[in-house]
Amino acid sequence: MEFPKENFSEWYNEVIETAGLVDKRYPVKGMHVWLPYGWQLMRNIDEYFRKVFTEHKHQEVYFPLLIPETEFKKEAEHIEGFENEVYWVTHGGLDPLDVKLVVRPTSETAMYPMFSLWIRSHADLPLRIFQIVNVFRYETKQTRTFIRVREVHFFESHTAHATAEESEEQIKDNIEIWKKVADKLALPYVLVRKTDWDKFPGAAYSIGAETIMPSGRTLQIATIHQYFQNFSKPYGIEYLKEDGTHDYVHQTTFGMSERLVGAIVGIHGDNRGLILPPEIAPIQVVIVPIVNKNKEGILQEARKIENELKELYRVHLDDRDNYTPGYKFYDWELKGVPLRLEIGPRDLEKGQVVLVRRDNFEKMFVSRKEYVDRIGELLKDIQKSMLDKAKNEMEEKIKDVHSIEEIKEHNGIAAVPWCGSEECGHKLEELTEKKIIGVPFEKKKGRCIICGKETDKIAFVAKPY
Amino acid sequence: MEFPKENFSEWYNEVIETAGLVDKRYPVKGMHVWLPYGWQLMRNIDEYFRKVFTEHKHQEVYFPLLIPETEFKKEAEHIEGFENEVYWVTHGGLDPLDVKLVVRPTSETAMYPMFSLWIRSHADLPLRIFQIVNVFRYETKQTRTFIRVREVHFFESHTAHATAEESEEQIKDNIEIWKKVADKLALPYVLVRKTDWDKFPGAAYSIGAETIMPSGRTLQIATIHQYFQNFSKPYGIEYLKEDGTHDYVHQTTFGMSERLVGAIVGIHGDNRGLILPPEIAPIQVVIVPIVNKNKEGILQEARKIENELKELYRVHLDDRDNYTPGYKFYDWELKGVPLRLEIGPRDLEKGQVVLVRRDNFEKMFVSRKEYVDRIGELLKDIQKSMLDKAKNEMEEKIKDVHSIEEIKEHNGIAAVPWCGSEECGHKLEELTEKKIIGVPFEKKKGRCIICGKETDKIAFVAKPY
Repeated sequence: MEFPKENFSEWYNEVIETAGLVDKRYPVKGMHVWLPYGWQLMRNIDEYFRKVFTEHKHQEVYFPLLIPETEFKKEAEHIEGFENEVYWVTHGGLDPLDVKLVVRPTSETAMYPMFSLWIRSHADLPLRIFQIVNVFRYETKQTRTFIRVREVHFFESHTAHATAEESEEQIKDNIEIWKKVADKLALPYVLVRKTDWDKFPGAAYSIGAETIMPSGRTLQIATIHQYFQNFSKPYGIEYLKEDGTHDYVHQTTFGMSERLVGAIVGIHGDNRGLILPPEIAPIQVVIVPIVNKNKEGILQEARKIENELKELYRVHLDDRDNYTPGYKFYDWELKGVPLRLEIGPRDLEKGQVVLVRRDNFEKMFVSRKEYVDRIGELLKDIQKSMLDKAKNEMEEKIKDVHSIEEIKEHNGIAAVPWCGSEECGHKLEELTEKKIIGVPFEKKKGRCIICGKETDKIAFVAKPY
Repeated sequence: MEFPKENFSEWYNEVIETAGLVDKRYPVKGMHVWLPYGWQLMRNIDEYFRKVFTEHKHQEVYFPLLIPETEFKKEAEHIEGFENEVYWVTHGGLDPLDVKLVVRPTSETAMYPMFSLWIRSHADLPLRIFQIVNVFRYETKQTRTFIRVREVHFFESHTAHATAEESEEQIKDNIEIWKKVADKLALPYVLVRKTDWDKFPGAAYSIGAETIMPSGRTLQIATIHQYFQNFSKPYGIEYLKEDGTHDYVHQTTFGMSERLVGAIVGIHGDNRGLILPPEIAPIQVVIVPIVNKNKEGILQEARKIENELKELYRVHLDDRDNYTPGYKFYDWELKGVPLRLEIGPRDLEKGQVVLVRRDNFEKMFVSRKEYVDRIGELLKDIQKSMLDKAKNEMEEKIKDVHSIEEIKEHNGIAAVPWCGSEECGHKLEELTEKKIIGVPFEKKKGRCIICGKETDKIAFVAKPY
């Protein structure tokens, strides 16, 4: 079965469902059922979040889903940014509630009333927590699995610091964490500072990690926000300084979501289906016994191989009776398992196994003496190749352009000089019918494409999801 | 610091917060913030659920939180049982929704519309799935942390089978799973069949695992439900049989929640605070260096010990500078860490460590040659002792009684002969101002305490939480 990736949108929808990641037929638009294979993939990513954020001194917590309207409405920009897209719980049983409850779209307004109780003095700082939860957005735009959904599997970390400098250090550390996550997921990206009219509601500034999907549209897959004292003031999060005076804390956040799965699916897949990065694949090696003859002997050997591998790798033996090897090959290719191990009568005789890479279909005959180590090397190499390939493809889609027409025509990120003014920015977006997804950190001299003023700022203009 | 357990209700509330399990000050009644230590405990229990249910052939999934009113209202008894205690989402942004959404109180009505799409033929059966989620009940009774809350951390498994016999087999397997969970958590319990007026809304019958808290009140800590075809008919979950005809599937469910944490806290704790079963304790061994002299040498040794232990046990080195060993002892006792390891100058000289059990405060001097293995033995022994002690205490609270007055006076479970009729059952509950929490599986001859008819049924009468 082939899934032509040229028509990306169709390919994406079809592969997600046939590979068994989710079922979209749930009777509420924009909410899907995570099937076992897809949920395992998501949970592997979650486990990595836990690991890396713990190493970076964060602690995991869980805050309630429902937020009282009174708390939700304390920060003006925040409520303005969210009030059109939150779900409201208005009734408990048959009775209207005294105070309406917001179904969390993100947890600032749930957490910060508690921060104001927890943080008393400088000894309580820094505070670094994270949670992995479901958040909700009443999307009015077209929904798309993993990318724009109404119930979102979400990661959020929140930190509080004594000084602005320390919260700026945390932003740097968040970027370091992000680099590790992107490597683990084999995702290429560019970091940009969002425009003021596109930053997180309530933030001083926002940084986005943007990737480019095969359609040429960009996808924001992580956001890091600097709040400084924007939330600590309305929520009264004050601490006693060593000199006896009080100050408000400085805060940052970091958010990621199931969009990461969407990016993995879109960026790495091919005409046969998914290709999953070995580091987070639910199954790293699938064993397919070729049982045209000596069935019991082969199956026994396959089980032995499974046992030899399972301490080291996530391995699955496909011993289904009623399917041909060829059917199984296609099935596991569709599901994106990085490495296939075949064992048949000839291999048994020769003391070898057959290994087939999912990313480039390379086929290798490897002796039983060395196959365990070889698999480890191959998984590493697949991970690296996937990331390198994706990086190259992404770089090709980022292009310096010099006219409005070129920006409109370019499929990907168009890099153009921009003076940085909101006026020119809005005009640029209007003329191109695209968006400034942000400003990269690298500077480059030029003249603003709108007003002609000298500038060292670049605008990344694209069509985002 | 002492927490007198005689006043159980006060003790319970105080220990939960001072030990750092949750913060109850969240501004919605009945919803609490899980703090890092409490959340780690809950997640250790979740991980065990994942392990044991996977071993018993279940797959993990995730279904949406919000359920359309139209699906929610398909099974009459179910909606009648829940409509007074669900939260309703009525608005998205500023607009009323076309179809109101229920915030899941449990997931039958979210899952079964999908089951009817997934299950086509006998080859699709049995289907066994589970999910670990947050569910919501608009409780009007007094809330109590972990025990009666409005947002509940919840485990639910759902199975579908071809025949009634197979779904009965599943109930037996669920009971086997429950026994493993109870052992892991060191919780004593009795299994009872719930009365018809107390079973799960929509179930053919329900089985409860009931434990007794130190207050003498019972706590239902697991429920297993047999639905047979009660849900498959309204939701149209039909399959093609081998003989070419169609039939509706037979279903079971199994539910557990954060109540398990409440039971662990209440049953095992003492005047010093929590006592956590080693199998699920976030920290199994806490290392407290005694640094009155040779501070650097001792700390270095403590780190060495941490390294020697951390591959085998969940270990934490308390190297906080600004606290005395005595303070640390109390702190970790409060948090219920099963084993404390002390290392001081004298121990360093003698090549030994000091081990202190949390459950009975036994203090042991153990040579550095054998301490690693000894810790393993001790953790096993603590786990066993805790369960044995709890079982004995529970058995003492179950009493055969012979009069209404005795039932009213007994603090715990009163076991009385009951004919099984709803009429006598209701009368028994009215007269005693208690509830029949269920009928145990063991039979015993007697005469119904209400009507005097001969019976082999026993009613367990108690005051449940």
